Amino acid sequence: MKKIKVGIIGAGGYGGVGAIELLLDHPKVEITGLFAKQDIGRPVSDIFPHLKGFCDLMVFDPEDTAAPSDFDVVFYSTPDGVGQKGARKWLDRGVKVLDYSGDFRFDDPATYCGYASRIGARQEHASPDLLPRTVYGLAELHRKEIAKADLVGNPGCFAVSCILGLAPAVKSGIIDEKSIICDAKTGVSGAGKKVNPAYHYPARYDSMNAYKISGHQHVYEMERELGLLAEKDIKITFTPHVIPMTRGILSTIYCSLKKREDINNVLEVYKSFYRNEKFVRVFGPERAQSTSDVRESNFCNLSINVDERTGKLIVISMIDNLMKGQAGSAVQNMNIMFGFEETTGLLRPGRFP
Amino acid sequence: MKKIKVGIIGAGGYGGVGAIELLLDHPKVEITGLFAKQDIGRPVSDIFPHLKGFCDLMVFDPEDTAAPSDFDVVFYSTPDGVGQKGARKWLDRGVKVLDYSGDFRFDDPATYCGYASRIGARQEHASPDLLPRTVYGLAELHRKEIAKADLVGNPGCFAVSCILGLAPAVKSGIIDEKSIICDAKTGVSGAGKKVNPAYHYPARYDSMNAYKISGHQHVYEMERELGLLAEKDIKITFTPHVIPMTRGILSTIYCSLKKREDINNVLEVYKSFYRNEKFVRVFGPERAQSTSDVRESNFCNLSINVDERTGKLIVISMIDNLMKGQAGSAVQNMNIMFGFEETTGLLRPGRFP
Amino acid sequence: MKKIKVGIIGAGGYGGVGAIELLLDHPKVEITGLFAKQDIGRPVSDIFPHLKGFCDLMVFDPEDTAAPSDFDVVFYSTPDGVGQKGARKWLDRGVKVLDYSGDFRFDDPATYCGYASRIGARQEHASPDLLPRTVYGLAELHRKEIAKADLVGNPGCFAVSCILGLAPAVKSGIIDEKSIICDAKTGVSGAGKKVNPAYHYPARYDSMNAYKISGHQHVYEMERELGLLAEKDIKITFTPHVIPMTRGILSTIYCSLKKREDINNVLEVYKSFYRNEKFVRVFGPERAQSTSDVRESNFCNLSINVDERTGKLIVISMIDNLMKGQAGSAVQNMNIMFGFEETTGLLRPGRFP
Amino acid sequence: MKKIKVGIIGAGGYGGVGAIELLLDHPKVEITGLFAKQDIGRPVSDIFPHLKGFCDLMVFDPEDTAAPSDFDVVFYSTPDGVGQKGARKWLDRGVKVLDYSGDFRFDDPATYCGYASRIGARQEHASPDLLPRTVYGLAELHRKEIAKADLVGNPGCFAVSCILGLAPAVKSGIIDEKSIICDAKTGVSGAGKKVNPAYHYPARYDSMNAYKISGHQHVYEMERELGLLAEKDIKITFTPHVIPMTRGILSTIYCSLKKREDINNVLEVYKSFYRNEKFVRVFGPERAQSTSDVRESNFCNLSINVDERTGKLIVISMIDNLMKGQAGSAVQNMNIMFGFEETTGLLRPGRFP
Repeated sequence: MKKIKVGIIGAGGYGGVGAIELLLDHPKVEITGLFAKQDIGRPVSDIFPHLKGFCDLMVFDPEDTAAPSDFDVVFYSTPDGVGQKGARKWLDRGVKVLDYSGDFRFDDPATYCGYASRIGARQEHASPDLLPRTVYGLAELHRKEIAKADLVGNPGCFAVSCILGLAPAVKSGIIDEKSIICDAKTGVSGAGKKVNPAYHYPARYDSMNAYKISGHQHVYEMERELGLLAEKDIKITFTPHVIPMTRGILSTIYCSLKKREDINNVLEVYKSFYRNEKFVRVFGPERAQSTSDVRESNFCNLSINVDERTGKLIVISMIDNLMKGQAGSAVQNMNIMFGFEETTGLLRPGRFP
Repeated sequence: MKKIKVGIIGAGGYGGVGAIELLLDHPKVEITGLFAKQDIGRPVSDIFPHLKGFCDLMVFDPEDTAAPSDFDVVFYSTPDGVGQKGARKWLDRGVKVLDYSGDFRFDDPATYCGYASRIGARQEHASPDLLPRTVYGLAELHRKEIAKADLVGNPGCFAVSCILGLAPAVKSGIIDEKSIICDAKTGVSGAGKKVNPAYHYPARYDSMNAYKISGHQHVYEMERELGLLAEKDIKITFTPHVIPMTRGILSTIYCSLKKREDINNVLEVYKSFYRNEKFVRVFGPERAQSTSDVRESNFCNLSINVDERTGKLIVISMIDNLMKGQAGSAVQNMNIMFGFEETTGLLRPGRFP
Repeated sequence: MKKIKVGIIGAGGYGGVGAIELLLDHPKVEITGLFAKQDIGRPVSDIFPHLKGFCDLMVFDPEDTAAPSDFDVVFYSTPDGVGQKGARKWLDRGVKVLDYSGDFRFDDPATYCGYASRIGARQEHASPDLLPRTVYGLAELHRKEIAKADLVGNPGCFAVSCILGLAPAVKSGIIDEKSIICDAKTGVSGAGKKVNPAYHYPARYDSMNAYKISGHQHVYEMERELGLLAEKDIKITFTPHVIPMTRGILSTIYCSLKKREDINNVLEVYKSFYRNEKFVRVFGPERAQSTSDVRESNFCNLSINVDERTGKLIVISMIDNLMKGQAGSAVQNMNIMFGFEETTGLLRPGRFP
Repeated sequence: MKKIKVGIIGAGGYGGVGAIELLLDHPKVEITGLFAKQDIGRPVSDIFPHLKGFCDLMVFDPEDTAAPSDFDVVFYSTPDGVGQKGARKWLDRGVKVLDYSGDFRFDDPATYCGYASRIGARQEHASPDLLPRTVYGLAELHRKEIAKADLVGNPGCFAVSCILGLAPAVKSGIIDEKSIICDAKTGVSGAGKKVNPAYHYPARYDSMNAYKISGHQHVYEMERELGLLAEKDIKITFTPHVIPMTRGILSTIYCSLKKREDINNVLEVYKSFYRNEKFVRVFGPERAQSTSDVRESNFCNLSINVDERTGKLIVISMIDNLMKGQAGSAVQNMNIMFGFEETTGLLRPGRFP
């Protein structure tokens, strides 16, 4: 079978290398072009030496007209603002586009504007006419639309963990949707490859912090997606934290149950919601689960708990922020967009220790 | 001036070495006896080699009748169940006692029984008649009683961070006391020096987890102390997490404000409550604070935030779990019990990086 | 094609889980039995939760007569002393055996005795008659013998890094073989999954140490293998160190060059020696290489340097101690023993970050 | 007693904050001026929040003529090239100068030139006439000259560990001085506070590397100092490594013994050499020592070993690179320069864990 051709824009970052690692092992894909703003003209294995002998493709400037351009799909593993300018040229040629940023997570200009204001970005989208074509790339909620889409906005890493942790409770109506609090902890790789004094090894090795308290942009897509499920407006209290580790998000989600619920009933709500999902594993409160259980895999592990003393549902949602939170979701979406088996190239348990 | 004589029972653990380090630098104290269940007959600097030349006292079995016994105060840096059996013999001789465990955090047998059931311990206290003499050793709330006490129960590390983070809000009545959620993250040293597969370096280095969801014993003393301040029963939703770092607790505390409050008013409530406190520093939402700001010091840093969208007060409370959360609080209590300046031996900023 | 059946004894340790992870992804292998001394009767995914859904086989006691026994090859991922007692029963049935320990690294009882005395073990081998059948499992030096063997002793992790770093220099005769010094640094996983106060997270997170100075048992096999290449006795000064990280060995190897050599000539000696090797990558002094370049892969990266001021050859040899240093080498050996393509299931670049 | 006044240039780096932390606790010193190139006009506790309430001095531009200038001593905690330009103005006013860089480690222009060429710096010293006044600030070797000096060049961190580890062996003549190999491992803080892709947390957390193989500039001062002791030229093979930890240098030093030596004789050479030293602790091979034994203290721990099989002396030399390797040595030198007890403000055991 002919392999599809993939180009990656932003190949020099963590999102890019994550896609390369996964696609190298994907039987139906060939990487045919890599683009970045730095390290132009060097093999990507100079930037990521572990790739030597596996992927030694040259890195091109995205503006280079002599660069490869024969792709079936292009990944924009780039910050906010890049994909919205570049996507059209690919779409016009029939090339599908997967964007990692917030550029294509919202399907109308007004909603995008609300998001853009949160990140201090220009609030006018560069390609507003493309927005109605885009689909929010969380397969567990939008599989059918993704299958038909040629433009997908990959979800934010925190959003993946919180939405998957909340969707069954919100959809089933067992919780008071005004009571949702998400306390999220992420490893440092969530902030990307760019150096930052706060992530310099000696500053970070034995220290954690909260940041953007009540102001993180991912809450926007959580509220939108969960609002669609609830069929009403939802507001979420969300606090992200940075933890001295590399891979992993653990979101601790608190909601008030509308009425006293037995843990088994709640567990059944979750198991039923995800009964056909390959990448969501639902557990009861039986054991202390760790992010190492999902490290380097595309899984989301959910631990469902009820605090009977306070009537709270407490969900612990764990993902690898660079996998299910980024490149893994991207490959899952690509599989759906091209009609491949959804799990192709993604069925790996990760590594321990 | 004659120095007071201190004995430390449980000198081989993190709580013990923390006390030794602080007391070595305390101008009014002399360590005259060290006790442990292991390493009997060896100098403590064999167990903790950094102490070589600073403290080379021999470790005695607590049962050894030939061991030193001339003390003004004894620290029980021991697990639950030890101090309650040993305290009487010291008290009877006029020696003051400071206990790190839950044994003397509650001043009546019934309350202790509730605590003991949480930790799966024998619910009958070994010395119930001593309980009315004990004081809960959080200086910021009980300074006057501590000054008169000869028996003090040092608070739990999570409790220190959460109670200090909540006390002004609860006391002032600005929050709905039924809405309190504490999401606490601790470094691994909180679990002590004892080996554990979950804290083996390769298992822990890149992994975090929640544990004892809704069931951690420290919630008991939080509810008791905050209930006293509120003059009503309080129930708290509390989830502890273990983070791959050594020192530090960061508790993220969520409460519903009774009415819309300006951040400056809330900040004033906190600043006013702690205006005379040397070891509590109150900050607004102006910057991302880190546990490294309090590492190796006796401070509690509080960052006060209001989420206007959801009407929540969000307090980030940070301590070094081995200092303000353990040995630092113990020395602070000892200073108060002996009429020393409260900050003696504790005014150090910690180290960075 | 019919898959070969593999049994793993010692499935609950790092060597066992490493083999499981690799074999799950190996197209010609089926894992049909797992054995351990602990967690009997539980699925292996209870011990290693990341395996859930990938490998949920029950763990059996190796002594259990009702346990699976239909294998083509058995991996002894066990400490010294276990494989030498168990191997015979499998060999007698025509089942091949791969042992991770020192039990089958030496092909005569006298040499084994020298090794055993180093580790304080019983010096008489339990199955001395099997020793002449065994082959030292370093494929780069013994590929042909491994192909014919039914009993292979997997090399020690430090030995892999030092022998591969030294073999070309020793074989070519460019160095004074009396001058060899190997300074090796390993991540903590090299010590296995068993808890140890020295590897408790808080004790290890910001500390390194040397140990077994001049006394580590792996030097024995290094001297034997390099002596065979040099055709003379070789003595090596070897110092291992433990570093606060999980995966990786970096051995810094110092030897006196017999005469002034140009770096390019020395580099050519190495490139030529390894010209047909898939898992050894030879580099000049051009860049600072890191163990992350080989993390989670089966590669050995060598950086070749000459210190012209002192006439030293300095080789930096890097492996993942759990891959090329353990499970990866085992699978490589298995591939050779069964006539599979040597790289089957092993051609992966690892993950970054 | 009147306190001496100290100014610190380069207060925003690790060397600066280390000096501040130590001097805050020094009974004979007052910090009266802080200078940096960044964060001008802000209190230093904005840069290092743990200092809040301990040191809130404003940071000045070193060029600011309105800045404080009434000092008894100035610390240049700055990179190569800064102190050599600034020192004169202080010296001319009778202010003593302590420089952390290589600028004043060499007392003649020609030797400095050799050093400068190693670091790619301008080879002509900016103040060559000052060089004859400077003293190499390793108190254990140059105590008397330091006492008389008004200009001291603090030694390099690697140099401290290697020179202290070698001095007794070199001075006593028991080793072949042509055989010296130093394999040094440092925590990341040795590279300073400046961000660097190689020290970004996710890149570094589970990876180590060698660098500047045969080319690190610290070897220059090691050879000079040890040559003085040996009264002959010495060349050293030196390889530095970066380890994923924050504080600590462990140097493993290999030398050929001229003749077979009993470990006790060698140990006696070391103990005798350092018998009056307060900050050097000499140990035999009895236990695995760790850098945590010296973390946050001014000690150098030496473990002396003899490999009888190969006739090598193996010394493990451990320091905290930011203390004895930097700010601690600086304060020790200051104490000597001002006639204070040498250990003033430095007698602390560090912290564990």
